[in-house]
Amino acid sequence: MADAGIEYVRMAEFSWRVLEPERGEFDFEWLDEIIGLIGEYGMEVVLCTPTAAPPRWLVAERPEILQRDRDGTVRSVGSRRHYCFNSEAYREESERVVRVLAERYADDPRVVGWQTDNEYGCHGTTRCYCDDCASAFRSWVRQEYDSVADLNDAWGTTFWSQQYDDFEQVDIPRPTPAQDHPSLALDFARFSSDSVVEYNRLQADILRGANDDWFVTHNFMNLFESVDAYDVGEDLDLISWDSYPTGHVQQAVDEASTDELRAGNPDLLSFNHDLYRSVLDRPFWVMEQQPGDVNWPPHSTQPAPGAMRLWAHHATAHGADAVVYFRWRRCLEGQEQYHAGLRKQDGSADRGYHDATQAAEELFDVDDVDAPVALLHDYENAWALGEQPHAPDFDYWQLLQAFYGGIRSHGVQVDIVHPDTSLESYDAVVAPTVHLATAQLADRLTAFVESGGELLLGPRTGHKDEYGKLASSVQPGPLTDLVGATVDQHESVPPQLEATVSRTDDTQTWYAFRTWAEWLEADGAQPILEYDGDAVEDGRTAAVRNRIGEGSVVYCGVWPEPDLAVDLVGSVLERAGVRRSAVLPGGVRVAHRGGYTWVMNFGSDPITVDLTGEASWRLGDETIDPFDLSIADGDVVDGLSVRILE
Amino acid sequence: MADAGIEYVRMAEFSWRVLEPERGEFDFEWLDEIIGLIGEYGMEVVLCTPTAAPPRWLVAERPEILQRDRDGTVRSVGSRRHYCFNSEAYREESERVVRVLAERYADDPRVVGWQTDNEYGCHGTTRCYCDDCASAFRSWVRQEYDSVADLNDAWGTTFWSQQYDDFEQVDIPRPTPAQDHPSLALDFARFSSDSVVEYNRLQADILRGANDDWFVTHNFMNLFESVDAYDVGEDLDLISWDSYPTGHVQQAVDEASTDELRAGNPDLLSFNHDLYRSVLDRPFWVMEQQPGDVNWPPHSTQPAPGAMRLWAHHATAHGADAVVYFRWRRCLEGQEQYHAGLRKQDGSADRGYHDATQAAEELFDVDDVDAPVALLHDYENAWALGEQPHAPDFDYWQLLQAFYGGIRSHGVQVDIVHPDTSLESYDAVVAPTVHLATAQLADRLTAFVESGGELLLGPRTGHKDEYGKLASSVQPGPLTDLVGATVDQHESVPPQLEATVSRTDDTQTWYAFRTWAEWLEADGAQPILEYDGDAVEDGRTAAVRNRIGEGSVVYCGVWPEPDLAVDLVGSVLERAGVRRSAVLPGGVRVAHRGGYTWVMNFGSDPITVDLTGEASWRLGDETIDPFDLSIADGDVVDGLSVRILE
Amino acid sequence: MADAGIEYVRMAEFSWRVLEPERGEFDFEWLDEIIGLIGEYGMEVVLCTPTAAPPRWLVAERPEILQRDRDGTVRSVGSRRHYCFNSEAYREESERVVRVLAERYADDPRVVGWQTDNEYGCHGTTRCYCDDCASAFRSWVRQEYDSVADLNDAWGTTFWSQQYDDFEQVDIPRPTPAQDHPSLALDFARFSSDSVVEYNRLQADILRGANDDWFVTHNFMNLFESVDAYDVGEDLDLISWDSYPTGHVQQAVDEASTDELRAGNPDLLSFNHDLYRSVLDRPFWVMEQQPGDVNWPPHSTQPAPGAMRLWAHHATAHGADAVVYFRWRRCLEGQEQYHAGLRKQDGSADRGYHDATQAAEELFDVDDVDAPVALLHDYENAWALGEQPHAPDFDYWQLLQAFYGGIRSHGVQVDIVHPDTSLESYDAVVAPTVHLATAQLADRLTAFVESGGELLLGPRTGHKDEYGKLASSVQPGPLTDLVGATVDQHESVPPQLEATVSRTDDTQTWYAFRTWAEWLEADGAQPILEYDGDAVEDGRTAAVRNRIGEGSVVYCGVWPEPDLAVDLVGSVLERAGVRRSAVLPGGVRVAHRGGYTWVMNFGSDPITVDLTGEASWRLGDETIDPFDLSIADGDVVDGLSVRILE
Ligand SMILES: [Mg+2]
Ligand SMILES: [Mg+2]
Ligand SMILES: [Mg+2]
Ligand SMILES: [Zn+2]
Ligand SMILES: [Zn+2]
Ligand SMILES: [Zn+2]
Repeated sequence: MADAGIEYVRMAEFSWRVLEPERGEFDFEWLDEIIGLIGEYGMEVVLCTPTAAPPRWLVAERPEILQRDRDGTVRSVGSRRHYCFNSEAYREESERVVRVLAERYADDPRVVGWQTDNEYGCHGTTRCYCDDCASAFRSWVRQEYDSVADLNDAWGTTFWSQQYDDFEQVDIPRPTPAQDHPSLALDFARFSSDSVVEYNRLQADILRGANDDWFVTHNFMNLFESVDAYDVGEDLDLISWDSYPTGHVQQAVDEASTDELRAGNPDLLSFNHDLYRSVLDRPFWVMEQQPGDVNWPPHSTQPAPGAMRLWAHHATAHGADAVVYFRWRRCLEGQEQYHAGLRKQDGSADRGYHDATQAAEELFDVDDVDAPVALLHDYENAWALGEQPHAPDFDYWQLLQAFYGGIRSHGVQVDIVHPDTSLESYDAVVAPTVHLATAQLADRLTAFVESGGELLLGPRTGHKDEYGKLASSVQPGPLTDLVGATVDQHESVPPQLEATVSRTDDTQTWYAFRTWAEWLEADGAQPILEYDGDAVEDGRTAAVRNRIGEGSVVYCGVWPEPDLAVDLVGSVLERAGVRRSAVLPGGVRVAHRGGYTWVMNFGSDPITVDLTGEASWRLGDETIDPFDLSIADGDVVDGLSVRILE
Repeated sequence: MADAGIEYVRMAEFSWRVLEPERGEFDFEWLDEIIGLIGEYGMEVVLCTPTAAPPRWLVAERPEILQRDRDGTVRSVGSRRHYCFNSEAYREESERVVRVLAERYADDPRVVGWQTDNEYGCHGTTRCYCDDCASAFRSWVRQEYDSVADLNDAWGTTFWSQQYDDFEQVDIPRPTPAQDHPSLALDFARFSSDSVVEYNRLQADILRGANDDWFVTHNFMNLFESVDAYDVGEDLDLISWDSYPTGHVQQAVDEASTDELRAGNPDLLSFNHDLYRSVLDRPFWVMEQQPGDVNWPPHSTQPAPGAMRLWAHHATAHGADAVVYFRWRRCLEGQEQYHAGLRKQDGSADRGYHDATQAAEELFDVDDVDAPVALLHDYENAWALGEQPHAPDFDYWQLLQAFYGGIRSHGVQVDIVHPDTSLESYDAVVAPTVHLATAQLADRLTAFVESGGELLLGPRTGHKDEYGKLASSVQPGPLTDLVGATVDQHESVPPQLEATVSRTDDTQTWYAFRTWAEWLEADGAQPILEYDGDAVEDGRTAAVRNRIGEGSVVYCGVWPEPDLAVDLVGSVLERAGVRRSAVLPGGVRVAHRGGYTWVMNFGSDPITVDLTGEASWRLGDETIDPFDLSIADGDVVDGLSVRILE
Repeated sequence: MADAGIEYVRMAEFSWRVLEPERGEFDFEWLDEIIGLIGEYGMEVVLCTPTAAPPRWLVAERPEILQRDRDGTVRSVGSRRHYCFNSEAYREESERVVRVLAERYADDPRVVGWQTDNEYGCHGTTRCYCDDCASAFRSWVRQEYDSVADLNDAWGTTFWSQQYDDFEQVDIPRPTPAQDHPSLALDFARFSSDSVVEYNRLQADILRGANDDWFVTHNFMNLFESVDAYDVGEDLDLISWDSYPTGHVQQAVDEASTDELRAGNPDLLSFNHDLYRSVLDRPFWVMEQQPGDVNWPPHSTQPAPGAMRLWAHHATAHGADAVVYFRWRRCLEGQEQYHAGLRKQDGSADRGYHDATQAAEELFDVDDVDAPVALLHDYENAWALGEQPHAPDFDYWQLLQAFYGGIRSHGVQVDIVHPDTSLESYDAVVAPTVHLATAQLADRLTAFVESGGELLLGPRTGHKDEYGKLASSVQPGPLTDLVGATVDQHESVPPQLEATVSRTDDTQTWYAFRTWAEWLEADGAQPILEYDGDAVEDGRTAAVRNRIGEGSVVYCGVWPEPDLAVDLVGSVLERAGVRRSAVLPGGVRVAHRGGYTWVMNFGSDPITVDLTGEASWRLGDETIDPFDLSIADGDVVDGLSVRILE
């Protein structure tokens, strides 16, 4: 391993049964031996608490720890993640095992940190429908609302005679003839995420209590919705995530391109890098990097030659301080036999091994990413929109990525932050949707613009209050003054309609949009896009710009297709004075970090890079092979342009 | 409201919890106040019994009222319609609350009528699988059959050893390895519909007992199958239904046209108008008219400008005496926040308000519709064919609409009646299928034809007896003599086969059909269509005509595509001497009622109307804008033709 | 019946309730009468044990016999196959009723044999999740493994902490958050099949005990996976299966061709014929032959004129000694009313009657099929690949048919045998996949090749051990020496990639493949195919040939499309010296049996047959009409070629 340039070994994430073969009888011999070997070769150990897979003897003793589906079916032992976050019994057992492990390795210098559990919420396990959860939800609701009258008022339960007479009637969502009450659904999503936060804190506190030099991390997942990473992050020292590029892209689009099947989609990957870097505003880790073909995507393609190396550099360019591969060697048994490792089943080097070794030689220490742009993201908007999408193809994460792609096409670094984050340090802010909006948030965004910030707002902004009820003034509710326009109507746009807008200036420029259209009524703001196609009557306003103080805000009432996103974002960056490249082709991405500039080619054709000035290349040069990259000294982003050599 | 031309206000359909916040403690203050206001402005009130949404305190006290899914899962409180029609507990509670309300307003002159409950059966709630239902079904079966031997005989239970040894073994359909017994399924469908009838009667009787000047109505739904509206109608004074044109069309077809996304499909709408008018053979109400964009269709498009006005006139032309909008103001909370009202969430006028106001000014009193043609419809055929469709795309309602569209293309009014209805007053009868057929029905249809009626029969006629068993003679069983032909074979037609027939005369006319093909053997009748394509061997007979007494019957063994339906129906109307227009384009419809003729344009191109004589236009003139209409004095249907101006 | 050429009548497969209307009270009168009639007309009777449909009185008395779904839902009475194979109660009841029946007819000369039960496993009923099954599975596991440590070792349960502490913890698969452990799933599949074997043996033993002249058979189904027919066959004297050509083909492909909708796919049919003939290596029966249109396929097309006759001859050519039609007369009641019989519902002759009568006149006695080629098939491979297909379109049976079609295109007879079968008598062996491979099997295949056999191996061979764990050496594991190559990587191939290989000789020949690609590393073997397209980097090896002793082995690392399968198989046959025809068009098939050669036309165009020498035609001649056949004297397969006359 050390030969491969490996510095950290993460271990033991599902090892409860080998660590504790029977209650109270722990066996550390094997683990001590491995840690010893790792130490001898100068590597360091990240241990995992083993709670993601409670062993059979524990389930047999305390079956009440098991989760239940919404229809009441027990989720049994036989795979993983079969426990309920709100089970008192499981919290006791988790505390017990984490404490024993933490104490055992508290003074071991080779163990540098811990991962709590593994991939909270994977396989749809964030939300549980057991009686413990019902009871915990009642307690949670009592904390949130002073009285049941307040609850009725906040949620709006008069509709369909849904009022609660007392808190005891509050229940988790059960099978019902029609849809759930959206405010119940929203609070149940909050509660479920909070349950994970609380459970994670329980582990983190024990680990810190044992050795406060340890870092505590958790490995999050691709575009994962049901757990609020910002909230969990408050109890972590380091954020990490598990990156499987060829799998994620097959989940994201119906039919991945040939290049995407080989190397993934760079924006989908870096969206996660940027999000998880932003959670603590510090370098993150990739805790599981795809090492070759993997078992779970629909199609298990082989990554392109060099792809594993490209991913390691790409992560680094976006702020990763370590890239850990999952797994070392292909496993001979169980559910993940078809998941490659760096080594094959017979122990010989597999494709990823060579890539990983090369990347390890090339990587170097570098300062953290400093992004001039923030993209606003709030899990609560995802939950609210997920409950009432109002169009079959309205997916919160895809909307975010539509705007995100517009930013990345300009080679500009971006933080993905919660709306409550201070925006002072940013030149521009892009909010694909501020769906649940409060007056306080409106004030903060207004202050940002007044003091010179440039703000881009997307559709469905200001539509609902924090409880998931409609604002009583028309959309964008509390943001109306800031936007200088209101939404007369909204409609969802079926794919059979030609959905296009044109610019209101004399450039004769048309753009496609999709899924969502709002009819804006400017009131102080300047119309900048108008409908011009089948979806909405020609001439109605689709986007406006409003000057406020030193800055301005653009409100875009449609879901932009790429060209529109690129141009809208481009104007915002221009006005905000953000340095940027020429518009990049989709398979090529540029990122700068700590005084270096990465140019990365996720395509199967070579490219050539044109710079305005002379560049000094730390790695590679201006011609970049398929699935390869170059690194230039300095922030050479301005004026950088790329040609594809076909 | 009064300014908007509103005459009736329907209220309180889900208000149990505000009316009775705790058992026995009623609060009428708010309702009295509203009724007072309505009265002051000269409007009238239609109250609803609040039983569609039993409140939480009632569910907590008597949880046995809840429905169960087929697999036994309880349908919990948290949306609406969570009660079982056969729950004795719920019948008691319903009686209690309806009695209190009825007595409270028995002498209130502002209250003119009642709607029982709301949309019986919505969200798949007609059929319940609780123990109360199992027991009620056993009682129902004992009523229907003299002995268990009779039951075994009627259903035919020897197959797969399904005989019942005594009535106690009779059970509702439970999860089984293979399909249900079709005769059990048919009787369970009858029982479930009867349970609704019985439950509705319980409410209607109380309301009438309190004030027999009140009308009692219920609001039915679009093409709703599980509740027999004819049977429920026997306890009602007025039939109403809930019309959502842009939603219904998206449920009906895979990909709605642009025009349909904006204004719905006129034939789909008027099919409902005609059906619900025919239930009591008197004017109906639209109790919920779509007022703008709504929350539940796949895509929530905005109706075309003027569409809400067009729908009001269209309903009137088909026999509506009132069009009530749902809802007055957009609701800020709960499951239907995305459902428009006539007023926006902030109380200002929304799009529908203007349309509704204009329509209210234009509407006028007019006599009832008098239709020369009857289309036969029996819910029992829908249930039997739904259980054994025998082709993936065989949908009873679509078959009915295939023939219905043929009638409406000629601008002819049509009643949609149960086969037991007297046919004396009709010149022509179209029966898209008489699937379950008895000798009595055969006799009545024969008598109709013998005395000069023209009858058009569709496929799968005479296939089964009233218990859902095959007729022991070949199809069309008891109608064989009438038809003058038998069915040698039937087959379902996959879409990959070219399905065409041609006329047996020398006109060289081909027609497309779909889904179903019967090989007819004429025995006395005259072949009029023969197969000529891939689906069935060329030359076999697809349709016949048989003269009987003064009239004739056409039996069509295929499911006709539009051109065939139009031509088949056209010949029948011709022979029957029914006055009709030239064949109308799909987006244009003509209807006459009480001495006026409506010409309605559901398309986005203007049209011009050509009449044989001079017309006097009560509204509009011969040029009709998109989504607009004109009304002529008199029955100007003969020779009327329409051109689309593109 | 006798007039129709019928020799055998199968009866009483669902007649428990009429035979035993109440416990212990048997009524044989009706059956005796029918048997009497059959005997009078010189026909013979095959009786069925009635256990596929336990009557209601039995279920009411002993409800524990019912199956349960995986989520615990009871599969109730109301259709058929609602019993659990492991229910002690049901085994008692089955024994009782079979014993009574067997004794009753033990001395009846008209009864010549018995069918046990009916279509074991139909409707997904092989695998049951009741407590009896859980307990039986624990016992089964105890038999298979000496200790729980052995079990843990064999399955590999360290992964995800899945170790069992004692046998009592072993459970059937229950609902879990993530996938099942594949080794548990594999053993549960084995156990479930074994449960059927055991249950069937119980019946077979009683029948034999009563009269050991009787043959005992069971009617298997099309490509049926969950029951191992080889294992069940060990307790049977005769194998039969139920053939529904127009239904099977609609299950097999997304869109059947017009010809297939009329006559099925000949290779799909004969695959079953060959499989079920090979189980006991003796002539089989078609126990249910489709007699016309049937009720259960998606589309219920009418078979082509003559198709029922063609199917009877086709079955005979593949080794059938009897073709029994289901059913005699269309049933008026219950779930299968839409299933044709030889007679219509009114008793008159239906289409199948005429075909069956003609076939009966033409059929003649003939020796058994003698096949020079074996195709290896093991249900356990189907179960293992079904649990981890690793590509959405990887279906075990389709893979087998890809190679099988290659054999049949050469007009060569083929046995479909279990890998444990002696291969001595075969010139060539085709193994589409030897997925679960042991050293013993590798030795046997090596011995076959060494002694001059020609072997063709398909992808995923040697991938796993018998417990479903990865081999610890790289693929093909224990077959590596035989193959002379290893698999560097495998990948699944999405349909959007152009998947092609070319020959390594200088013939410039390209072939398409699908779904699966392996990167081979030759080590002693000769590359014969290399990748040349989008799916895998050009030049990598896709197939190799290795000479061993007197024979050779070809390993093909891709799933071949038809042209590649035909050419690969052709070379193997050539080297093996197997006599074969010119490559046949897809709709034409040739089979020889006992000195006769059948040429069968499953297409809608006539064909003409060219022979190298003079042929004497026993039936028909060299011009064959659509859906017709000819039979030549002698094995005229060499050089035979066919032209389609369009
Ligand atoms: Mg939050
Ligand atoms: Mg009826
Ligand atoms: Mg076996
Ligand atoms: Zn829980
Ligand atoms: Zn019920
Ligand atoms: Zn069982």
